[in-house]
Amino acid sequence: MSDLAPVLDHIDASLDESLERLFALVRVPSISTDPAYADECRKAAGWLVEELKGIGFEASLRETPGHPMVVAHHEGEGPHVLFYGHYDVQPVDPLDLWKSDPFTPAVEERNGRRVITGRGASDDKGQLMTFVEACRAYKAVHGRLPCRITLLFEGEEESGSPSLKPFLNKYAEELRADFALVCDTAMWDRETPGISIALRGLVGEEVTVKAADRDLHSGFFGGVAANPIRILARVLADMHDENGRVTIPGFYDGVHETPREMLKSWEQLGETPESFLGPVGLSIPAGESGRSVLELVWARPTAEFNGIVGGYTGKGFKTVIPAQASAKVSFRLVHDQDPDKIRAAFREFVRQRIPADCKVEFAEHGSSGAIRLDHTAPMVTKAAEALSAEWPKPAVMLAMGGSIPIVGEFKRVLGMESLLIGYALPDDCIHSPNEKYDLTSFHKGQRSWARILHALAH
Amino acid sequence: MSDLAPVLDHIDASLDESLERLFALVRVPSISTDPAYADECRKAAGWLVEELKGIGFEASLRETPGHPMVVAHHEGEGPHVLFYGHYDVQPVDPLDLWKSDPFTPAVEERNGRRVITGRGASDDKGQLMTFVEACRAYKAVHGRLPCRITLLFEGEEESGSPSLKPFLNKYAEELRADFALVCDTAMWDRETPGISIALRGLVGEEVTVKAADRDLHSGFFGGVAANPIRILARVLADMHDENGRVTIPGFYDGVHETPREMLKSWEQLGETPESFLGPVGLSIPAGESGRSVLELVWARPTAEFNGIVGGYTGKGFKTVIPAQASAKVSFRLVHDQDPDKIRAAFREFVRQRIPADCKVEFAEHGSSGAIRLDHTAPMVTKAAEALSAEWPKPAVMLAMGGSIPIVGEFKRVLGMESLLIGYALPDDCIHSPNEKYDLTSFHKGQRSWARILHALAH
Repeated sequence: MSDLAPVLDHIDASLDESLERLFALVRVPSISTDPAYADECRKAAGWLVEELKGIGFEASLRETPGHPMVVAHHEGEGPHVLFYGHYDVQPVDPLDLWKSDPFTPAVEERNGRRVITGRGASDDKGQLMTFVEACRAYKAVHGRLPCRITLLFEGEEESGSPSLKPFLNKYAEELRADFALVCDTAMWDRETPGISIALRGLVGEEVTVKAADRDLHSGFFGGVAANPIRILARVLADMHDENGRVTIPGFYDGVHETPREMLKSWEQLGETPESFLGPVGLSIPAGESGRSVLELVWARPTAEFNGIVGGYTGKGFKTVIPAQASAKVSFRLVHDQDPDKIRAAFREFVRQRIPADCKVEFAEHGSSGAIRLDHTAPMVTKAAEALSAEWPKPAVMLAMGGSIPIVGEFKRVLGMESLLIGYALPDDCIHSPNEKYDLTSFHKGQRSWARILHALAH
Repeated sequence: MSDLAPVLDHIDASLDESLERLFALVRVPSISTDPAYADECRKAAGWLVEELKGIGFEASLRETPGHPMVVAHHEGEGPHVLFYGHYDVQPVDPLDLWKSDPFTPAVEERNGRRVITGRGASDDKGQLMTFVEACRAYKAVHGRLPCRITLLFEGEEESGSPSLKPFLNKYAEELRADFALVCDTAMWDRETPGISIALRGLVGEEVTVKAADRDLHSGFFGGVAANPIRILARVLADMHDENGRVTIPGFYDGVHETPREMLKSWEQLGETPESFLGPVGLSIPAGESGRSVLELVWARPTAEFNGIVGGYTGKGFKTVIPAQASAKVSFRLVHDQDPDKIRAAFREFVRQRIPADCKVEFAEHGSSGAIRLDHTAPMVTKAAEALSAEWPKPAVMLAMGGSIPIVGEFKRVLGMESLLIGYALPDDCIHSPNEKYDLTSFHKGQRSWARILHALAH
């Protein structure tokens, strides 16, 4: 630890200066989705390039059809890591709900904690700056970095990342590293850091059932003509059994039982149906019975109905038998479930329930397999030990119920695994008015990265 | 038949003059739904008042908050009948699809038949004029009418009849007769007249299932949070068994098996699943198995889903678990089914399927019991014999799958049964461009009414 201690001391001693630099970046209203702020996005990217050059990175701004990317390199002896973050932010409306100007950052006392206020303070400027500042401190103390580091900062994350995939393809050779570090996630709680090692995959489908060739009068035809809403309701109802399991044949192929020690560590997080569902007004888990809520969202596949429409949906009433009804259905996948097989099995399941005189059409809406890191891999255990040394409680292996596109792209385009580590907190109000980042997140985040880089190199 | 023959002769001899009078009425563009034609509606009503006075009726125009009603009375020795028709018509757009001006009626050859063209030629000016002309002929020949007759001509039938119910209430004593004759329906086919003796009732419900207190991200919550679309699909799917029967407890209380002789007479109409469903692109009856299509639409109750909506229904995809989903559900009732009990049983059926942490709300959309005439009642058999004497084939007892509000109002407000007899044909293009009324419908329709009035009086 002889290399590390002075770096941590340096971080502590220069917290005020690092905060000033974060403020400078937050002051740039780099709202990517609004074309009126295109120049501000470019300004934020340019600011990053200059900062990185100042630290000693070979940094440059790279054009895309949208907002520019920032790419930077620094040599090092340890493994080659690609660090990803984004410099763009969400819009700020409704502005009148903000207690202070979103682009005039400050440190304030809030609920007994010192927090950094401003749009992007947490998502993702504060987070990406924890890494930049950790590198700066290490370099300042030792004149070198412990790993070979490539930085990739995107400016379109909050507007769908349209340029990302072509960019990764174009610069694949330059960007490919041993693995990626992605800093855009939250801790489990204020005392417990987490590493996300699994992300569910997603298959999106739209199914349209077509019966008569026109809308029919339910008086003339009711009781005789096929009703597509009835057919669709039957299809959707059949998709789960009474225990909440998905009934599509082959759906669970490739799904593994979660290791007992992983389940135990999740149990210790203390999440209950009440704590998980209470904040949204619910209390009873609706998924597979006999499993914890964390296992359900982190390690089990699902079939969800995201939208349904058919017939007359306006005010009042219309006695119509509609010509068609449709639903948007999505599957969250885990482990080795094959998106193509799931899609095909779903379509076959539906077709078997369509009367011979009716039709069904499908539209595809995206497809990605689940992503899973081996939680016993050295980079995972090293990062976990480093985080556990910094925070009051040991690091936990988390999973995520959702999908993070960048992680899938890194895997597909660059063949790289990603370690998702972030210091945001659930109450950071990202995407909402009064976004904040705990000063502790910013300070101990820098220290965490210093520890992780040090650990990865040894 | 001594009284009748000269009346029929008179009708034959004066067909051209009766046609001229129908033309005069069709020339008035009495489009009730468009305020720009309010004066034309009043003009049509006024024209009818003058014509009826000319025949010898005590006729008057009665104001309503909307378009005026026409009420007329004539003494007679037989039973007191209330004849109902409507002088207003549907709009004519798209005008460019009309082969001739909709308000310049003419007799034309179409598909080998002589037809009267124009908006309202069939619905309902041509139809109501068959009755008026039958009265005129009877009066001309005999100087009297065979029954005591009250006429009620409405001017808002094509725009929802907003003034009808208050009007019936206000003039209940004046309008109440032994029974009503309603001429606004079609024959079974060109050779087979029909009397509609049953109308299904209707209960309309809107059900909204509410789960979380906001839309949720299906990645974070999928597999744990209740999905209202899934709950609603289960409710709707549970409402029919595999034989198409409605499974709501008590739903079939008050439903009687259709008399064998009635089923036989319907069988002879030759309707098949292919002939009934083929024109709308279907072929397989979706209702209770083991019953004919005519029995299904005329004599069996149904549960139909008229609309459904929940979650994201726009283009593309959104991985949301919606906060709520809702469906519009209607029940067609027959015989003695009690609308209030059906509604209560449906709500209980739904509530039993709502998870304890979710909510359900209901909205009521109308309620009316089924209407059924005793097909052995003298007025029915007399009218059937009279029709059978006029047309190539014997009259058949029909039912209607839909509801005709006026019939329910006559029953509820005036305590009167209605006999629905009309001479329209399925290819009359009512409510569409190129509306027509067969010259045979107009001519034999007058003769039919003369025969019916004569038969009712004896």
